Amino acid sequence: MSAESQSLVERARGGDPRALARVITAVENRAPQSAQLLRALFPHSGHARIIGLTGAPGAGKSTLVDQLAREYRKQQRTVGIIAVDPTSPFSGGAILGDRIRMQAHHADPGIYIRSMATRGSLGGLAGTTADVATVLDASGRDLVLIETVGVGQDEVDIVRLADVTVVILVPGMGDDVQTIKAGIMEIADIFVINKSDREGAERVEREIRAMQSLAMRRDNWSPPIIKTVATEGTGTVELAKAIAEYETYLAKNGLLLEKRARHWHDRLLEMLRDALLRRVVREQLGEAEITRYAAEVAEHKRDPYSLVEEIVASLGKNDVRH
Amino acid sequence: MSAESQSLVERARGGDPRALARVITAVENRAPQSAQLLRALFPHSGHARIIGLTGAPGAGKSTLVDQLAREYRKQQRTVGIIAVDPTSPFSGGAILGDRIRMQAHHADPGIYIRSMATRGSLGGLAGTTADVATVLDASGRDLVLIETVGVGQDEVDIVRLADVTVVILVPGMGDDVQTIKAGIMEIADIFVINKSDREGAERVEREIRAMQSLAMRRDNWSPPIIKTVATEGTGTVELAKAIAEYETYLAKNGLLLEKRARHWHDRLLEMLRDALLRRVVREQLGEAEITRYAAEVAEHKRDPYSLVEEIVASLGKNDVRH
Repeated sequence: MSAESQSLVERARGGDPRALARVITAVENRAPQSAQLLRALFPHSGHARIIGLTGAPGAGKSTLVDQLAREYRKQQRTVGIIAVDPTSPFSGGAILGDRIRMQAHHADPGIYIRSMATRGSLGGLAGTTADVATVLDASGRDLVLIETVGVGQDEVDIVRLADVTVVILVPGMGDDVQTIKAGIMEIADIFVINKSDREGAERVEREIRAMQSLAMRRDNWSPPIIKTVATEGTGTVELAKAIAEYETYLAKNGLLLEKRARHWHDRLLEMLRDALLRRVVREQLGEAEITRYAAEVAEHKRDPYSLVEEIVASLGKNDVRH
Repeated sequence: MSAESQSLVERARGGDPRALARVITAVENRAPQSAQLLRALFPHSGHARIIGLTGAPGAGKSTLVDQLAREYRKQQRTVGIIAVDPTSPFSGGAILGDRIRMQAHHADPGIYIRSMATRGSLGGLAGTTADVATVLDASGRDLVLIETVGVGQDEVDIVRLADVTVVILVPGMGDDVQTIKAGIMEIADIFVINKSDREGAERVEREIRAMQSLAMRRDNWSPPIIKTVATEGTGTVELAKAIAEYETYLAKNGLLLEKRARHWHDRLLEMLRDALLRRVVREQLGEAEITRYAAEVAEHKRDPYSLVEEIVASLGKNDVRH
């Protein structure tokens, strides 16, 4: 590793915001040095609790995450926030909101916020987010809060990588809008009903209870339902307490390592997919060839299924070219 | 290919609904015979127009797609519909809606509807949807309509594979809710403002125009804005006309093949990722080994970045095992 990268790693480990920003940007862009930066930082990670918070658009996730971060700061714990929002509000309002939000915490070095929206062409958003969480973890943050809109598969994959997953619902948005990704209810360790002063909060609670009565959890944990009004700070203390209780439950029953191992199982496969494609593109198949093949398939001169099998079969046999 | 598969392919090509259902299920589950089924069907595909329709939850996509299908049936054209909805409404209402919907078209063999919600563990939803579109295309459908909720990356990937992409917006849902995936506005070939009898339709139109004035399109097409009230059938004829005009534009300027080649470029890379991982899992790395590695990484006994590079480097060297 170059002396420059070495120094960057040292400064990032010390929590220097500029160094962190540079490392995270390298990771996000899958820059050439990102692999060695991650290799150097990984051994120093593993101490932070990773909390994933997800919910429908408009559920008030950002406000809730900000309140939770403030609560943790009162406990003298340092916080990293990764705000993943690949949706774009049509009017562009949220971008402004994000800036205001960054300024609100600006004076406190104990909170580091990073917004992420894009994914590279090679590699999904979930993997990148997990790598960024590793970086913040290695920088000595006690908690890493990952907030994401819970609608697409990518978003589910993101929160699945957390130690604790909080699913945020709101009353009164109507059936059409209260849509969240199938499968996300099942991964909730804690439910939050935000904007719980609105009409319909009891109905949402009943629906969660009804669903829970059908569900079986591997770890026998019974996910609590916390009611919050994030704009007023109501319920934040209770949410922090519920998270702590689940952490204790995981630790006491030896479940944390088991949960992390399950996450790594999926993530290793995902990392393998990306790395294998990179090797093929590097050794076997240049951009010009991919473009030519794509044109041939589009014209139906080639069948893509056989083509892909041929390329895969020939990997490792350097003399075979199509 | 077995005689059974051969016969299945023949019947699917002829449009037999039962054979189609069996082939599609095999493709969805990535069953062992799916690759040969797709190889056999691919040469017969390429004739259907693939239309992708996407929009926020609650935008009225299903109703609009149904109306559009009816319009095409009036033109004596056959239609396949792939309804991709990986979101689950909290109350479960949409599942019922889907059943009612299937029944409404049941009498017409010119319309084939298939709902998809899941993705397999190896391979994304976008690729599977594209393969299902190929099956319907090869079955002689004139049009394949793919409808999806436009919020996650998967969903954007799905509509990106279409020849024509329709983005559906609605007035009056508020900034919080009118969130669609960043990047989806850019891929719209046609905009629909559905529920356009509601207050705020003009505002949505102005916002689209404002955004369009900033955007540059590769193909110089200027996406029209169609106002509909899908529940009353208003605007459906105009939408079908706009789609036909864009198709003519693509054909006249030789852009259709170019567009399809661009889609195949991305899809070939995605197929390669999946196929490479399958080869590694088959030859190199059993489930037990992945589980063991995952546990070691979770305990920080191994660095996952180096591990993945080692596995990738050793592919093709059969005697190397970790």
